[in-house]
Amino acid sequence: MKLATYKSPAGTTHLGLVVQGGIVQIDAALPDAPRDMIGLIEAFPTWRDRLEALAASGRVDASLATVTLLAPIPRPGKIMAIGLNYADHVAESGMAKPAEQLWFAKMPTAATGPYAPIERPRVSSQLDYEAELAFVIGSRCKHVSRDHARDVIFGYCVSNDVSVRDWQLRTSQFTLGKSFDTHAPFGPWIVTADEVPDPHKLGIRCFVNGEKRQDSTTAQLIFDCYDQVAHLSAAMTLEPGDVVMTGTPGGVGVAHKPPSWLRAGDRVRVEIDGLGEIENLVAEEAAR
Amino acid sequence: MKLATYKSPAGTTHLGLVVQGGIVQIDAALPDAPRDMIGLIEAFPTWRDRLEALAASGRVDASLATVTLLAPIPRPGKIMAIGLNYADHVAESGMAKPAEQLWFAKMPTAATGPYAPIERPRVSSQLDYEAELAFVIGSRCKHVSRDHARDVIFGYCVSNDVSVRDWQLRTSQFTLGKSFDTHAPFGPWIVTADEVPDPHKLGIRCFVNGEKRQDSTTAQLIFDCYDQVAHLSAAMTLEPGDVVMTGTPGGVGVAHKPPSWLRAGDRVRVEIDGLGEIENLVAEEAAR
Repeated sequence: MKLATYKSPAGTTHLGLVVQGGIVQIDAALPDAPRDMIGLIEAFPTWRDRLEALAASGRVDASLATVTLLAPIPRPGKIMAIGLNYADHVAESGMAKPAEQLWFAKMPTAATGPYAPIERPRVSSQLDYEAELAFVIGSRCKHVSRDHARDVIFGYCVSNDVSVRDWQLRTSQFTLGKSFDTHAPFGPWIVTADEVPDPHKLGIRCFVNGEKRQDSTTAQLIFDCYDQVAHLSAAMTLEPGDVVMTGTPGGVGVAHKPPSWLRAGDRVRVEIDGLGEIENLVAEEAAR
Repeated sequence: MKLATYKSPAGTTHLGLVVQGGIVQIDAALPDAPRDMIGLIEAFPTWRDRLEALAASGRVDASLATVTLLAPIPRPGKIMAIGLNYADHVAESGMAKPAEQLWFAKMPTAATGPYAPIERPRVSSQLDYEAELAFVIGSRCKHVSRDHARDVIFGYCVSNDVSVRDWQLRTSQFTLGKSFDTHAPFGPWIVTADEVPDPHKLGIRCFVNGEKRQDSTTAQLIFDCYDQVAHLSAAMTLEPGDVVMTGTPGGVGVAHKPPSWLRAGDRVRVEIDGLGEIENLVAEEAAR
């Protein structure tokens, strides 16, 4: 099942099922269903059969071309992200291969849609991309063993861990440089875990203005999704709708010689086999 | 004005005004007022006069002894925290005085009440306290200058940036070791900014089982609250109810020789002049 959050041409926000030929407006077909994605994930066991029947019904309420896809979870409770988690990226960064999972956070205010603009901040020109597989937590959980981690993953998305390198690296702590507004685009929708037989065999690519910059596979993950669930949940309760970004492969802009920064007007596309693609235009930071 | 979130003896959650002699249940006196703290902060300009009149009315609905104070904002949108921000703490840490503000995050799932238990995690015994002044954002804002930072601070709280030192320091990134469940107690209520003439002249102390461990003043802050607002808001939008922890003075357990860790049964009290105190009992992590 592919679950989206979208804005209709009339400007109203809905949950949708992405099907052959378009999108089904869930609240039109199932008026009692939860109206926001976190609510739907929490109540999913109750709604799953009806959603599957709806997806198979042939109903289509709108074509994808007429709606605006938003971040599937517009405001996650948390966005955790792991660093240095592909062997090729570790090599290009010049850092040692981590013996431990290296976690930082992106603030929820950074979340944005799969086709929304990425802002080039006023305070930096060192704007960089990081193509990443993201997963979405399905159940409130703590101390999940690696063997049971699969059970708490609701689904998968394509994401871009957009990074402001000078702010990321001016102190020892990455979080601020990873948390600029609009710097966590993800989507285009959530592909539920049952449709992803093995999340660790997915091709992942990033293109800037059509030029391939990253091209790898999630088979290269040093700590895989299940390792990540086990480690995170040893410290903190994970909750429905929490988003975890699983690391980026080699080819990021900062590793180019000289570094290649994103500029206003650039188009950054991230695609992952079976999950779809997101594409964000870089724009100068809006006046506020 | 002192604004609290509390649970009544009947188990219902309310916003309250803390007054001489007890607490006023806001929804009983003003049924149309927002029912959660973030909503009240957002709508504060509309409700301020009525709340001030209510605080001055002499009404008292319950004594503080009969209610359970919860975190004033049970689930902040974000909790940002700054490291190495008191000269005496920098000295004891053996690190260099930072030329830049050093930011990390605590996950919102770590928030807990001013008198709730702090968990000693199953996975670590290196549990430590950090007494901190916290401030709460009042308005959605970005690019706030230092001169205008005061305008977006809604109020102040007492907080404890509880830290799991081995997890904090096992990689370069602090966030995971700072984000264990129950490790962000704050309160006991929000003191609105108009009642804090100068947040940078407040005595701050921490006691473990009655023994004074930290004793300093916010005059020692390297980067003050206004510097912090300016720097954070250059990167990210700050929103009503976001919590910022402003750093801890010297005297933390990890700096003792040998280190002095918190154990189950310990009572940790943090007090700040004019803001009140919080006191948390350390308990073994609950079974889940």
